[in-house]
Amino acid sequence: MNGSIPGIDAVLFDVGGTLVEQAAPATPVSDLAARPLPGVVETLRSLAAHHRLGAVTDTATMGESTVRALLAPSGIDALLEVVVTSSDMGAAKPDPRGVLEACARLGVAPERTLLVGDNDVDRDAAATAGVAFAAVDGGLPDAISRAIAARSGPFTAAADAVVPLDRDARAAAEARQAQLTKPAGSLGRVETLGNLVAAITGRCPPPVPSRPVVVVFAGDHGVVASGVTPWPQDITAAMVANFAAGGAAINAFARQVGAEVHVVDVGVAADLQGLPGVVHRKVRAGTDDLMIGPAMSTADARAALDTGADVAAGLVAAGHDLLVTGDMGIGNTTASAALIAAFTHTHPDAVTGRGTGIDDAMLAHKTKVVANAVGRVDGYLDPVSVLAEVGGLEIAAIAGLIVGGAAERVPVIVDGVIACAALVAANALVPGVAEHCVAGHRSSEPGATVALAHLNLDPLIDLELRLGEGTGACLAVPIVQAAVRVLNEMATFDELEAQSASEPDDGRR
Amino acid sequence: MNGSIPGIDAVLFDVGGTLVEQAAPATPVSDLAARPLPGVVETLRSLAAHHRLGAVTDTATMGESTVRALLAPSGIDALLEVVVTSSDMGAAKPDPRGVLEACARLGVAPERTLLVGDNDVDRDAAATAGVAFAAVDGGLPDAISRAIAARSGPFTAAADAVVPLDRDARAAAEARQAQLTKPAGSLGRVETLGNLVAAITGRCPPPVPSRPVVVVFAGDHGVVASGVTPWPQDITAAMVANFAAGGAAINAFARQVGAEVHVVDVGVAADLQGLPGVVHRKVRAGTDDLMIGPAMSTADARAALDTGADVAAGLVAAGHDLLVTGDMGIGNTTASAALIAAFTHTHPDAVTGRGTGIDDAMLAHKTKVVANAVGRVDGYLDPVSVLAEVGGLEIAAIAGLIVGGAAERVPVIVDGVIACAALVAANALVPGVAEHCVAGHRSSEPGATVALAHLNLDPLIDLELRLGEGTGACLAVPIVQAAVRVLNEMATFDELEAQSASEPDDGRR
Repeated sequence: MNGSIPGIDAVLFDVGGTLVEQAAPATPVSDLAARPLPGVVETLRSLAAHHRLGAVTDTATMGESTVRALLAPSGIDALLEVVVTSSDMGAAKPDPRGVLEACARLGVAPERTLLVGDNDVDRDAAATAGVAFAAVDGGLPDAISRAIAARSGPFTAAADAVVPLDRDARAAAEARQAQLTKPAGSLGRVETLGNLVAAITGRCPPPVPSRPVVVVFAGDHGVVASGVTPWPQDITAAMVANFAAGGAAINAFARQVGAEVHVVDVGVAADLQGLPGVVHRKVRAGTDDLMIGPAMSTADARAALDTGADVAAGLVAAGHDLLVTGDMGIGNTTASAALIAAFTHTHPDAVTGRGTGIDDAMLAHKTKVVANAVGRVDGYLDPVSVLAEVGGLEIAAIAGLIVGGAAERVPVIVDGVIACAALVAANALVPGVAEHCVAGHRSSEPGATVALAHLNLDPLIDLELRLGEGTGACLAVPIVQAAVRVLNEMATFDELEAQSASEPDDGRR
Repeated sequence: MNGSIPGIDAVLFDVGGTLVEQAAPATPVSDLAARPLPGVVETLRSLAAHHRLGAVTDTATMGESTVRALLAPSGIDALLEVVVTSSDMGAAKPDPRGVLEACARLGVAPERTLLVGDNDVDRDAAATAGVAFAAVDGGLPDAISRAIAARSGPFTAAADAVVPLDRDARAAAEARQAQLTKPAGSLGRVETLGNLVAAITGRCPPPVPSRPVVVVFAGDHGVVASGVTPWPQDITAAMVANFAAGGAAINAFARQVGAEVHVVDVGVAADLQGLPGVVHRKVRAGTDDLMIGPAMSTADARAALDTGADVAAGLVAAGHDLLVTGDMGIGNTTASAALIAAFTHTHPDAVTGRGTGIDDAMLAHKTKVVANAVGRVDGYLDPVSVLAEVGGLEIAAIAGLIVGGAAERVPVIVDGVIACAALVAANALVPGVAEHCVAGHRSSEPGATVALAHLNLDPLIDLELRLGEGTGACLAVPIVQAAVRVLNEMATFDELEAQSASEPDDGRR
């Protein structure tokens, strides 16, 4: 292996059980001998060529120098730039302070750092510190290989490819707006929308999007077992069949605006392999109940992010020039509320809504479920960990699609509360990516408004929709297209005068 | 002539100068002799076959019996069911009480009544009382012929053809919404919009509108001479040429939504006959300055109403199934503000806006112009008189289009503040006609919001547009179409279950 982990500048290691054999808890320091685990020294040497390395270890009595002395005979000590011990810090994992101290001493941002460890306190410390995590089960070489694979996926590639909005293209669009045959500013938000598309695409005028596509990611949610919705879980699969047959609201809307509908099974809790008209990219058959524990592993969340980014890249490669987010998943307003609460630091009461229609008692229960889940991720700084703990597969996939679209410089119209949850997650993963999106509509779910305000986005449509599927965003497609047409097709006052001058004089001027 | 005036149940006459020769002011009653003017007795006899007849006369001393005695020898007295004198009423024209007393005694609504008279106090009394008016210049037979012609036009025919919204079709649509594959109500206002189209068209499901057309009526405004806008009047003609060439915002928007654009010159102050791509229906070359006096005659206003209704009928006959109102006319936000203030009884300050962009000083002046104009129509009950006094030719034409569309049971999407002014006028002329319309968008002009609230309409789009031309309404076209598609194209839950049951059992249910 070449030992280079994409997007990562520093790798931190737990020591006992990760780099060296775990000593029995009561072994006196004088008896300790650090026996490296298989492949550790070779792996560290390989990593050192590309990354800054350090250790963060919990020990009741040892300071940095003692640990270094123990590790010196194996050659490990020489490969570690920093060694932080809980004894020196006065705080043991899962407290994130040791990890953050190591980052600070290395001068590397937490989001560019990976922690490798062998147990739950390591994982929790990583999530709270906002660093990536790799579990060492199967040995260090294998853990690093998996980390490389995970970080090399389409999502990371897309995230690395996102560039800032093009200020020059936006300025050119603004200047053009002022020359067109209308009073300056009289098209209101349609003008700023056209200018935004110029900034996203980096072109002025941007090409008029002619091949919009709605991507409906479908996934199931274990939390339905906790009684957060009156709809049975198998409605998700039934609606996927409905999408494939063209009988759902999103199909009707998409036909109206000339958009294709791509239905992607990223996590339905039913075998849909036999169903034609569906893109089969299942990461797993639904999440676990987020009321009880993590909805999924960080590897699953990352796989769903990858799926979304990969789907975006494929659709753009196939000629689509406007992406519209859609979703289907019974129970997904619960996961969305939790994600929005966690990422926007908002009280669960303010973001939990009635979804597809629940009564007061069920709403109160749903709010408690959200609050419990959000409580577990309190203080987590790693967005993938939050997404895994309280999110959903289709939500993670939408986040991937958003980042994938931004990477391709194609506008993404985000739909209602599910898409808003994906968008806050995406923006936490790739700060600023929300600027590359168009908020299609304001869902009547309260979390949507919280998320949009958090991201400083003003939606185009506000018609009290709360269906999802991409319906609200789909209605915004012609507005985005019309906004771009303005920049492409309107005459300027100069052109109008020239045209008028070239006509035979009819005495009217 | 057959003596039947469409839409009119009662005809009231001034006496001196209208039915009989005008006596010199100081003639003693004992010397008065009522000499009928030419053709009067024959005209009254002809009218009496179809209408209730009466007289409303100003006289310093005579009561009803004295007037009747004077008229008896000519045979006129016997043809008049009621005779109201100012002496009996204690109020002379232009006070409307005599006219209203005659209506009440005949048991006929003012809006079904025509007053015929020979001078300004008659005209003003009619406007204030809300009755139609015909001037007797040229003699009574000619005045009645003109009244018949005026009342027989396309606008009156359309107004008479408007039927109430179809409650059964709406109820059927509501019932269907509840069966479709979505939680009840989850499409929010898109559902009520689809149901409204069912009620307008009288069909469930209504056909999906496939041939939308934007009708841009263009007219000039004499009030530009009073300094209410920085734009010169000839921009109106230049923009008409721009529409015809396809270079304006409305052309770009219409292309996006698949709508045709019909440009109708109903009152541009320039000769556009040589311009191709324009429908030439000029009533007159711009209005007079409404700051100084009436913008136009009631005959002109009625001709513009007729034009709008006639254009609507022609477009529907040509297969268009969705009408979108558009306008062009430098200065028309001033006329619109005056109309909205007058019809909604709102203070001019609250309805006068910056139009295409004016500074504080010009806004203050514009507000004064509006206030002066509105003051003149204070108490007018005849909507045509209000439209003539402070309106515009393109605004009256839009009102005609609205009524024409309703008569044809075709939805009309109304645009911004100009269309809103036309809509309040139309709704005053044909009470309830606004229910047949879809409010396309909320213009940022304050008068639009006042008018929409007055009519209890909630617009579909709110993007701070203030251009006019039909741009905002045009963006609402796909929403209306999508709303109707829902009723036509979505599967029901029963169908979804049947479809699922007919599939090979894959074990997932």
